[in-house]
Amino acid sequence: MANPVPMAEIWRGDFLESVHHGHAVICDDSGQIVEAWGDPQAVVLPRSSSKMIQALPLVESGAADAYRLWDEHLALACASHNGAAIHTERVQGWLDHIGRTEDDFRCGAQEPRDIEMRNALICSGKEPCQIHNNCSGKHAGFLTLNRHLGAGSEYVEISHPVQQACLEAFEDVCGEESPGHVVDGCSAPNFAVSLQGMARAMAYFAAAEERPGVRAEAAVRLRRAMVAYPELVAGEGRACTELMRAAQGRVALKTGAEAFFIAIIPERKLGVALKITDGSTRGAECAIAAILVKLGLLDANHPATLKRMNAPIRNWRGIETGVIRRAAGFC
Amino acid sequence: MANPVPMAEIWRGDFLESVHHGHAVICDDSGQIVEAWGDPQAVVLPRSSSKMIQALPLVESGAADAYRLWDEHLALACASHNGAAIHTERVQGWLDHIGRTEDDFRCGAQEPRDIEMRNALICSGKEPCQIHNNCSGKHAGFLTLNRHLGAGSEYVEISHPVQQACLEAFEDVCGEESPGHVVDGCSAPNFAVSLQGMARAMAYFAAAEERPGVRAEAAVRLRRAMVAYPELVAGEGRACTELMRAAQGRVALKTGAEAFFIAIIPERKLGVALKITDGSTRGAECAIAAILVKLGLLDANHPATLKRMNAPIRNWRGIETGVIRRAAGFC
Repeated sequence: MANPVPMAEIWRGDFLESVHHGHAVICDDSGQIVEAWGDPQAVVLPRSSSKMIQALPLVESGAADAYRLWDEHLALACASHNGAAIHTERVQGWLDHIGRTEDDFRCGAQEPRDIEMRNALICSGKEPCQIHNNCSGKHAGFLTLNRHLGAGSEYVEISHPVQQACLEAFEDVCGEESPGHVVDGCSAPNFAVSLQGMARAMAYFAAAEERPGVRAEAAVRLRRAMVAYPELVAGEGRACTELMRAAQGRVALKTGAEAFFIAIIPERKLGVALKITDGSTRGAECAIAAILVKLGLLDANHPATLKRMNAPIRNWRGIETGVIRRAAGFC
Repeated sequence: MANPVPMAEIWRGDFLESVHHGHAVICDDSGQIVEAWGDPQAVVLPRSSSKMIQALPLVESGAADAYRLWDEHLALACASHNGAAIHTERVQGWLDHIGRTEDDFRCGAQEPRDIEMRNALICSGKEPCQIHNNCSGKHAGFLTLNRHLGAGSEYVEISHPVQQACLEAFEDVCGEESPGHVVDGCSAPNFAVSLQGMARAMAYFAAAEERPGVRAEAAVRLRRAMVAYPELVAGEGRACTELMRAAQGRVALKTGAEAFFIAIIPERKLGVALKITDGSTRGAECAIAAILVKLGLLDANHPATLKRMNAPIRNWRGIETGVIRRAAGFC
């Protein structure tokens, strides 16, 4: 069991102030490790980085087609969005379309990260609702599948057909039995797996064109939807959105809570999974950018790349006081 | 050079999801180490945990008395406050009293952390100003000292008499020469030191009654002001405020950016300094609480203690999904 390795450093003046350690794995489409840092067998909770897997049953069941979902809905099903108008309006429309309401959600109300939407709510004295929850697209997908299956209302329970379908798909694409599940921030089950298993799943998405069957077809559609709508997968200013745009369609990216990150790289048939062990998002964003630069998929000098792996830290007067950067020796 | 040790763990269900490592030192009033975890010689930036040291020149110069500052002003000089009305009104009054305005500050404008104040600004369309900056009390102290000294307006420059006085006091109470300085979030210099040096300084504050001279007298006044006004040192809901209240006057506490924390313990003549190496505040709060429980200064079952070192993590529906707790084997 290898220790996590330094991946990102915070420097202030001439002093190394903080360090983020992590594990990372790159797998090929046979599920074998191409390169790894730290412990590829570390058991992890991929959190929202598993959303494209959780969306597989929505597509492969035929539910997405039965309800004529567009690619933008599929992108939202894989999203941890900002709760901006571009997200909430589409989720509201989706609910209307499938004859469901916000009350049917089980994700909980969350203050939107989008500042404009947040301020509008504050100044109008309105409370945020479940549609603002960053996972409302995933849950709209769950409700669509559930309507298609005709199952009960408590779709986030582990025994519910929606979640059992997610578990089956998860273990299949990861190529491993999950050692257990937890309750995620949005109340849905989140399945544990080895980091290699998660990277293997991402390589499955990367090379799904070459596999037969509805699952592989679903994987291709979901991956392409993510790449086609980077602004729906996260939102303006966010790493997933900005780095997918910077990679110009060559990579699908998805963050997860507690510093998880994945990358799907179709042209190389590679999958990447990484976890910063202290749970700091800034560390995970720096590390995934460094890996994508190493793989030739991101320009090290693109502003979106620099913002994550060589970003000046500025203080309240705009003075440059430090930098976050790739750890020496990583990638 | 010892590695940092696990201090705080984030569990979700049966899975260890994230871990925070750190260094910590407890020093006695002779500056010797009573107990240490990790590397006591680690060079650190104490950030806002050094504010009571930066306030020493304000008091020992006679400036605080010349301007008839109260203990609440001294507490604010040591504060990283929320920018709530109780903080901003006092800082505004202080500026008026010394014949200075917000324009004289060099700390920069910062959105207040206090939700009520933040929302009031947003809904009235007003921008936050430098008085809302969490360091505005420290800077009001700098301006007061500067007025007393009759020095130039650029009081955050390292060569300015205000900062030279801070450096002299810092090296004296730490018992070490500082290896250098950086620019802090509020644009003031922040001096590097070993973790033991910082713990030694906190022991100086803890046992200052027994030392002769104006510096030691100033240390006693500042420490007592912090303990007397815990709500001014941080704000409602914050760790410094809640843990000082829970310790019922027996400890002065101060957090610093990037997961620094100090404790001053007069009854034991001890000083504590700790740094979580990944910079996560949740880890530093958990670790300082664990050390204070171990020293018998905090009740492990007090709500303020539980909130930091055995706190349920709840999701958007209020469901308990995990826990942050002291790492097994630490303290």
